[in-house]
Amino acid sequence: MKTTTPVKVAIVGASGYSGEELVRLLLAHPHAELHAVTSRQYAGQALARVFPRFACRPGARTLHLSEPNPEMLAKQADVIFLALPHGIAAEFAIPLLKLGCRVIDLSADFRLKDAVVYKEFYGHDHPAPELLAKSVYGLPEVYRKEIKDASLIASPGCYPTSILLPTLPLVRAGLIHSHSIIADSLSGVSGAGRKAELDYLFCECNESVRPYSVPKHRHLSEIEEQLSLAAGVKVTIQFTPHLIPVNRGILTTLYMAPSAHFSDATGAAELGEEITACYQSAYGNEPFVRLLNGNALPDTKNVIGTNVVEIAWRLDPRTGRLIVMSAEDNIIKGASGQAVQSMNILCGFTETAGLI
Amino acid sequence: MKTTTPVKVAIVGASGYSGEELVRLLLAHPHAELHAVTSRQYAGQALARVFPRFACRPGARTLHLSEPNPEMLAKQADVIFLALPHGIAAEFAIPLLKLGCRVIDLSADFRLKDAVVYKEFYGHDHPAPELLAKSVYGLPEVYRKEIKDASLIASPGCYPTSILLPTLPLVRAGLIHSHSIIADSLSGVSGAGRKAELDYLFCECNESVRPYSVPKHRHLSEIEEQLSLAAGVKVTIQFTPHLIPVNRGILTTLYMAPSAHFSDATGAAELGEEITACYQSAYGNEPFVRLLNGNALPDTKNVIGTNVVEIAWRLDPRTGRLIVMSAEDNIIKGASGQAVQSMNILCGFTETAGLI
Amino acid sequence: MKTTTPVKVAIVGASGYSGEELVRLLLAHPHAELHAVTSRQYAGQALARVFPRFACRPGARTLHLSEPNPEMLAKQADVIFLALPHGIAAEFAIPLLKLGCRVIDLSADFRLKDAVVYKEFYGHDHPAPELLAKSVYGLPEVYRKEIKDASLIASPGCYPTSILLPTLPLVRAGLIHSHSIIADSLSGVSGAGRKAELDYLFCECNESVRPYSVPKHRHLSEIEEQLSLAAGVKVTIQFTPHLIPVNRGILTTLYMAPSAHFSDATGAAELGEEITACYQSAYGNEPFVRLLNGNALPDTKNVIGTNVVEIAWRLDPRTGRLIVMSAEDNIIKGASGQAVQSMNILCGFTETAGLI
Amino acid sequence: MKTTTPVKVAIVGASGYSGEELVRLLLAHPHAELHAVTSRQYAGQALARVFPRFACRPGARTLHLSEPNPEMLAKQADVIFLALPHGIAAEFAIPLLKLGCRVIDLSADFRLKDAVVYKEFYGHDHPAPELLAKSVYGLPEVYRKEIKDASLIASPGCYPTSILLPTLPLVRAGLIHSHSIIADSLSGVSGAGRKAELDYLFCECNESVRPYSVPKHRHLSEIEEQLSLAAGVKVTIQFTPHLIPVNRGILTTLYMAPSAHFSDATGAAELGEEITACYQSAYGNEPFVRLLNGNALPDTKNVIGTNVVEIAWRLDPRTGRLIVMSAEDNIIKGASGQAVQSMNILCGFTETAGLI
Repeated sequence: MKTTTPVKVAIVGASGYSGEELVRLLLAHPHAELHAVTSRQYAGQALARVFPRFACRPGARTLHLSEPNPEMLAKQADVIFLALPHGIAAEFAIPLLKLGCRVIDLSADFRLKDAVVYKEFYGHDHPAPELLAKSVYGLPEVYRKEIKDASLIASPGCYPTSILLPTLPLVRAGLIHSHSIIADSLSGVSGAGRKAELDYLFCECNESVRPYSVPKHRHLSEIEEQLSLAAGVKVTIQFTPHLIPVNRGILTTLYMAPSAHFSDATGAAELGEEITACYQSAYGNEPFVRLLNGNALPDTKNVIGTNVVEIAWRLDPRTGRLIVMSAEDNIIKGASGQAVQSMNILCGFTETAGLI
Repeated sequence: MKTTTPVKVAIVGASGYSGEELVRLLLAHPHAELHAVTSRQYAGQALARVFPRFACRPGARTLHLSEPNPEMLAKQADVIFLALPHGIAAEFAIPLLKLGCRVIDLSADFRLKDAVVYKEFYGHDHPAPELLAKSVYGLPEVYRKEIKDASLIASPGCYPTSILLPTLPLVRAGLIHSHSIIADSLSGVSGAGRKAELDYLFCECNESVRPYSVPKHRHLSEIEEQLSLAAGVKVTIQFTPHLIPVNRGILTTLYMAPSAHFSDATGAAELGEEITACYQSAYGNEPFVRLLNGNALPDTKNVIGTNVVEIAWRLDPRTGRLIVMSAEDNIIKGASGQAVQSMNILCGFTETAGLI
Repeated sequence: MKTTTPVKVAIVGASGYSGEELVRLLLAHPHAELHAVTSRQYAGQALARVFPRFACRPGARTLHLSEPNPEMLAKQADVIFLALPHGIAAEFAIPLLKLGCRVIDLSADFRLKDAVVYKEFYGHDHPAPELLAKSVYGLPEVYRKEIKDASLIASPGCYPTSILLPTLPLVRAGLIHSHSIIADSLSGVSGAGRKAELDYLFCECNESVRPYSVPKHRHLSEIEEQLSLAAGVKVTIQFTPHLIPVNRGILTTLYMAPSAHFSDATGAAELGEEITACYQSAYGNEPFVRLLNGNALPDTKNVIGTNVVEIAWRLDPRTGRLIVMSAEDNIIKGASGQAVQSMNILCGFTETAGLI
Repeated sequence: MKTTTPVKVAIVGASGYSGEELVRLLLAHPHAELHAVTSRQYAGQALARVFPRFACRPGARTLHLSEPNPEMLAKQADVIFLALPHGIAAEFAIPLLKLGCRVIDLSADFRLKDAVVYKEFYGHDHPAPELLAKSVYGLPEVYRKEIKDASLIASPGCYPTSILLPTLPLVRAGLIHSHSIIADSLSGVSGAGRKAELDYLFCECNESVRPYSVPKHRHLSEIEEQLSLAAGVKVTIQFTPHLIPVNRGILTTLYMAPSAHFSDATGAAELGEEITACYQSAYGNEPFVRLLNGNALPDTKNVIGTNVVEIAWRLDPRTGRLIVMSAEDNIIKGASGQAVQSMNILCGFTETAGLI
């Protein structure tokens, strides 16, 4: 049975783009009460002043940003969202968990099961390896059941969400060679965070497109861990992120070799039915995955401002490859919206509450 | 010996983005005299009125746009640029060639050698198949010698230029499996032409990214023909174009399987030396190909407004793949600049004249 | 007493930007049921197909777009929104009113009281001058009482909203010389509508800023009529619209001569108190007018996606002028949001229902 | 007589947007030899590495950025461009002038004649008030003669250029009430410089428009000084700058009261002839001022990448006002192009050399 007793929530680190979006979603959420929002930079100021765009929402005028303090937070809220840089998130998660809070962490700190992989990709020892086994990877379409009982939810990265949702069902069904996956992703600039760096100035991004972190971006670690769990064998993939001049949105184009060979329209049609069935079975009832039909292809403008991932695919009889494309809002389904979706599951609310 | 006797030139179809860029380049060219510019839409108007941005250039105030007429054009100019939709370009090329003009065609009409492939990709019989053998593919870095003596130059498409320049040397050297090529391209909206269609309105493109023509875009035909010629066997590749909200620029990311297996840093270093040598040999002296060093990766903002293609590559020991990235201005190196480069070769001018 | 019996609504002309925003707002409205949406272009298609971005909302999958038919609409809905080009809106409003519907018209057809002025600005006789007396100008902050009992609401234009809300209180209070008003406005491209015209292509708007309709834009007619009603004398103002490369938003900067002379900080402080009091009295309790304090100035990014108008002002002791600046979302407070606000008043709902 | 003996030039402070544009213009200039380019940040690196977009120009590969040192610079070059923040420019100008160099300063340091006004607007004492009398305001259309013999040229600001060129002829001819001038300006983000500040991040500027520095921007000081010199009386104007999401360009809309009253089309036509004659006399032969005819209005996209200012005007018989609009590239005619234009005059080159 769904309950609707309001839950008391807090956001630690509200001045970044994900933090700001959490503020927006939680101020409007029908079953959440935002009791604390922290920001070292803006401590003491009213929410409505720091984020004028939310000023007309009840709550934004009375709530003030505060210095982050675990003891205080644990008194104010039951569910705490951490929208902090990786490394720092762990510093808050550890005491908050001890104090009995449920923690939904949007950083990379608890997404991996393997502390060795963490060190390889993040360059230092994991600060709390004992928590890795305990944390649940907050991808509701895959870990809904585990999220329900979690005390620590590691909300996935924006790129991983856009890559895992289209690939996991195919890998689990054995429809593709998992080592053949190539993910080419395009991200809006908000993905870089609200950081005062030359590279992200308007004039450096506008009328510009560029790849970065080639060939080994940190998000590979969680993508490959999840794919490996699904495949039952270690999976290594290719992933190239690009920066494009939009505020929001990730478009990922995936190239894969199907397990079954095909080289003409008939073969493609047969395999196509399996793929359709596979996606239908995985996502046919998912409120936030939109499987496109007919000629439609994903377009970030159709998902911006929503918690939806669009997915479409094509089989190419000329090359024998499968191309899958996805689009999401990097700050919503790729970050804050997905975190709220996890909260809804955790608290027994309707999963779409505050997200449609 | 380089000569600098000015050449009389004309542009047929100046109202599109490629035509406009040809006007810009040829008005400023030290050895070209623009004697005719045609446009059905703007016939009778001064160049300076239709293109105010060129009004301060000598010539823009006196020259008027005219109705296109092959006989008249043949009297006015020796080299004629065709910036017309495919299909219509051939209607002008045929009489102009008979009248003794040199023709540089920016459309797709004469890029293929095989009329059957033309029909497969363009949906109708080729209007002048006898000219296909005669035409030269206007990629100077590959066909410099042939361009010198050509009467009909088929200037390459924007995507093909961004894909062929990075791949041809590798294919010719046998360094990669030619069937493994995957090209993921991102293009600015000018690539769609100056067409009054809803899909290209500001509000439909801004804050949007989307793939299109998946999996079989028309440009595949010329890309595969050129790669096949280089490989000595029929090559089929994967190509996915995307539309991104910039005016200018194409960024292509290529994924390939090297012929030589490698799986660690040492193997990558060895293969890397071969790739470096291959590119150095192909482009070390090319004025318009910039091979990036060190950590640098291509960025369209570094090539916009220039005739340059930037190329960088990375070997990924985790996957055994080679990733090559290129950036160009789709209207300059991808269209009008490359056509002027061909004209320079054709006329015996310094190849960079009017382009640096 | 506020009632919450749901109202049956319909939208005529859903394929433009205002129509699309009405669909978004009404699908999510807690007290409205969307029973019909018309579009000649998309008749027969499901709402979710034409507007994929709304596909996850209940209702978007079942409701289909239909041909507009007044008799049918009158059976399906009690309140009808017209999001049609001016001239065509009247063709629907006339029969719908006869059939007993309440009509909220987003076009310019019924905004003026004076048919002569209509003809001067729109170039032809008004099609139903007898309705002009009956219609209510749908600016809730001014005509809340009249909207409550209206059968025909003429929802204001986007520029007029951004100009009238900042000026009307000052004019009514006699604080400024009404003939001194200069309004310099900057609008996003959605203001031009979803029209396939070269001028609104991405490449023609991006990296471009331009004034248009100088010095006599059609919106002057309704602005001046409303200001004249407030002033008690005929008011003529200066208004210059500009097109800037954003999807959404209008920023208006207004220059005015205060009735009281001032030339130093002390004079400015005294006058400033009167202005503060004037705005506070007019808008202190308005949910959708945000009076900025301190150093804050309007920024369209703070109002986009909301029904809010931001207003700030400065007195310049150097020139003796008052500068007032406003920002709004041209499609929400400047069009569809304001229309829904009127519906809320008309139906006795909380005025902010479905808008916060 | 025009000479074309090459001049040795240097740029101090090349890492900002104006500095970068100077590098571009001077590398391509037919009569200038770039002998030194300084940048503390990039000292030691090749020009081609710091600015890959210039890598194909001869000179960019051999020239290295260096630490700024007046003695060294004076040995390397005869004309020195200063592209430095205000305050710092004076620190270099003073020794360079003593060492016999000609200095073209793009900062605000020497634009004012009055050290008191400097202190009022810039907040500290002028570092070298004795140089103010000596410096020439580098607006070639006004001070061509003085520039020819200047040792210190203070190149105007971007906003001042866009405001002064349209207003000075009218003020000098007494056609307008000089105290009535209102300048509403819209600037691209490059105007803020290449500074790592949150306000200029892509996501903070894209889909945003905002006024700033209301009502007293620093550029008012030089605008008003120049207008006062032209009017023969002290002139105070209204000026409101706005930030819009484009890289380049300033669009200024000016509102003025003509000295002669008019209130109908006939009056407007008569006054219009005087205005036409006034502008024609001032700018009819100017290579970089484009007076628009017919229905044409300024559009920044028509001037971007050029040294041209577009000007158009309209008389409004409804209000009796004159509206004048101008467009320029803020980094070229508003900064670096204009500085090169001054260099051309100073050195006796054709004024358009390297600028068309």
